[in-house]
Amino acid sequence: MIKRLTVIGVGLIGGSLALALRRAGEVGHVTGVGRSLANLELAEQRGIIDAYTTNAAEAVTQADMVVIAVSVGASGEIFNTVRSALPASAVITDVGSAKGSVVAAARTALGDRFPRFVAGHPIAGTEHSGAGAAFVDLYVDHKVVLTPEPDTDQDALAQVGAMWTAVGADVISMPVDAHDRALAATSHLPHLLAFNLVDMLAQHEDGESIFDFAAGGFRDFTRIASSSPQMWTEIALANRDAVLASGRDYAERFEALLLALERGDSEALLAIFESARHTRNRNIVQVRKDGE
Amino acid sequence: MIKRLTVIGVGLIGGSLALALRRAGEVGHVTGVGRSLANLELAEQRGIIDAYTTNAAEAVTQADMVVIAVSVGASGEIFNTVRSALPASAVITDVGSAKGSVVAAARTALGDRFPRFVAGHPIAGTEHSGAGAAFVDLYVDHKVVLTPEPDTDQDALAQVGAMWTAVGADVISMPVDAHDRALAATSHLPHLLAFNLVDMLAQHEDGESIFDFAAGGFRDFTRIASSSPQMWTEIALANRDAVLASGRDYAERFEALLLALERGDSEALLAIFESARHTRNRNIVQVRKDGE
Repeated sequence: MIKRLTVIGVGLIGGSLALALRRAGEVGHVTGVGRSLANLELAEQRGIIDAYTTNAAEAVTQADMVVIAVSVGASGEIFNTVRSALPASAVITDVGSAKGSVVAAARTALGDRFPRFVAGHPIAGTEHSGAGAAFVDLYVDHKVVLTPEPDTDQDALAQVGAMWTAVGADVISMPVDAHDRALAATSHLPHLLAFNLVDMLAQHEDGESIFDFAAGGFRDFTRIASSSPQMWTEIALANRDAVLASGRDYAERFEALLLALERGDSEALLAIFESARHTRNRNIVQVRKDGE
Repeated sequence: MIKRLTVIGVGLIGGSLALALRRAGEVGHVTGVGRSLANLELAEQRGIIDAYTTNAAEAVTQADMVVIAVSVGASGEIFNTVRSALPASAVITDVGSAKGSVVAAARTALGDRFPRFVAGHPIAGTEHSGAGAAFVDLYVDHKVVLTPEPDTDQDALAQVGAMWTAVGADVISMPVDAHDRALAATSHLPHLLAFNLVDMLAQHEDGESIFDFAAGGFRDFTRIASSSPQMWTEIALANRDAVLASGRDYAERFEALLLALERGDSEALLAIFESARHTRNRNIVQVRKDGE
C-alpha cells in the first residue's frame, strides 16, 4: 500500500498505473504533475489523480513513491528538479524504454539519494498517449523489467516490485545492458522500420493513393508508426548504441534477402520465411488487448 | 448469378469467395478443386462447396465461371491444365497478389481463350490459410483490383466485376504495372521486412528469451511473418522487379535514418517519424476485421 503517490507525467503509462493501483486498493492519495493543465484536468476528471500541480519539486515533498512517467529525454531534468525536495524515505522509479542513459542521469542528479531510485520499464503500451488513453488493465499479464544497480536499496527495489505486481504485471530484474539490447531489437528497431516504411510511401511516385491498396496486414505492420514522433526520437537517441547495432544487423540481413530475391533463390527466401514463421508462432501469443 | 462456379484452390481466398457468393444468393453449384482431399472434405463439410475433385480439367467442363485461387507460382500450370477443357463461354479469373507474371502465363497458356481471362486481386486476407480459415465477410468493404488487358472481353470483365461486387467488395480496374508497383510497396515489401526481423531475432545472441520483451506493438508488426512461407516466396519471385525496386528504396532510406541516429540528428529523425505518423493517421482506417 502506497500512502502518497506522485506521478510525474500523467499519460498512458503513468495514468494507467494510477488507475490500476486505485482499483487494487493499493494507493491512498495520488498527486499528478505535468506541463499541460488540460491533460491534468482530464486526469482528475477521470479519477486518475486526486490533485495536481505543474511544480514537480512541490509535488514530491510528501511522497512515499514517485513515478517518473515522462519521455526518456525529459527524465534527466526531472531528477534535477526533485532532488532537493525528495523525502529521505521516498522511493523513486521511472518507466523509460531505454535504461542506460536514464540510470546515468539519475546517478549524476540524485547523488546520495541514488540508492532509492529503481529504474523500471513496463513492456506495455499502445500508439496512443495522454491521460485520455490511460486504461486500468494496461499492465495485466505484461512484463515489467527492473534494472537495479549494485548500490540500489533492496527495500526500494522490493517496494517498486510490489507496486507493479499489485497491478497484475509480471516483474523481472535484469542488467541495464541486457535490457537495452533486448528492447532495441524487439521494440526500438521495429518502430524505426515502420516509420521508415510509411515515410517512404508518403513520398511514393503514385502519391497517397498508394494507401488504397493497404489491407489489414499493412495496417497492423504500421500501427506503431502512429506512435509519438517526439517520444520515439528521444528513445532512439537514448538507446543509440544498441539501436544502431540492431539496425546494422537488420540492414545486412535485408541486403542478403534482396540479393537472394535478385538471383531468384527460392530456397534461400523460403528458409528465411520459414524460420520467421516458425519462431513467431512458437513465441508470440495471439491475443490482442489494446484495441485498435 | 453464376450457375456453375469452379473454385480451383479452396483456401482462405477461394473458400471465402464461395461462402460469400452463396450467402448473397449469387451462385448455384460450386465445384472445388485441390490437391488435398482433407481440405476439400473440410470445405464440403463447411458448406463452401457442393462437390469436389482433384482433376482441374474435369472440373471446368461445365463451368460458367472459373476462379483460380492457388498460389501465384502454381497458376501457370493450372492454365495449361484447363485450357482444352474450358467451355467457350466460360469466364476465368484469378486472385494472385502479383499480376504481371500471371497475365503473361495466362496469355501463353490460354491462347485464343485469353480474352475470357480477367486478372484480379482481392486486397484482403489474413495470415491464416486453408478452407478452415475461410469466412463469409472477408471481402466486405475491401478493394478488388482487376487488371484487364486491351484484348480482354468487356463481357468477361463485367461478369468478374459483378461477382466481386456481389460479395461486398469495392472493384477497381488499373494497369498491371501500376498494380504490381503498388502492391510491392504496401504488401510484398512489408512481408519481407517482417520476415527479416523475426528471422534475425530467431538467431539473436540472447536466444528466444528475447521474445519475452515483445509487447503488442511487436505482435502486430510481425503478424504478417506468420503468413505462408511458400506463398510469399512465390509472390516475391513473381513480382521480383517491383519488389526489388521497392526494397532498394527502403534500404537506402533506412541507411540514411541510421546515419541520422549515429550523428545524433534529432531533427532528421523527428522529420521522418512525423511524416510517417501524419501520413498513416490520414490514410489508414483504424478498424480491425480479421480477428487475431
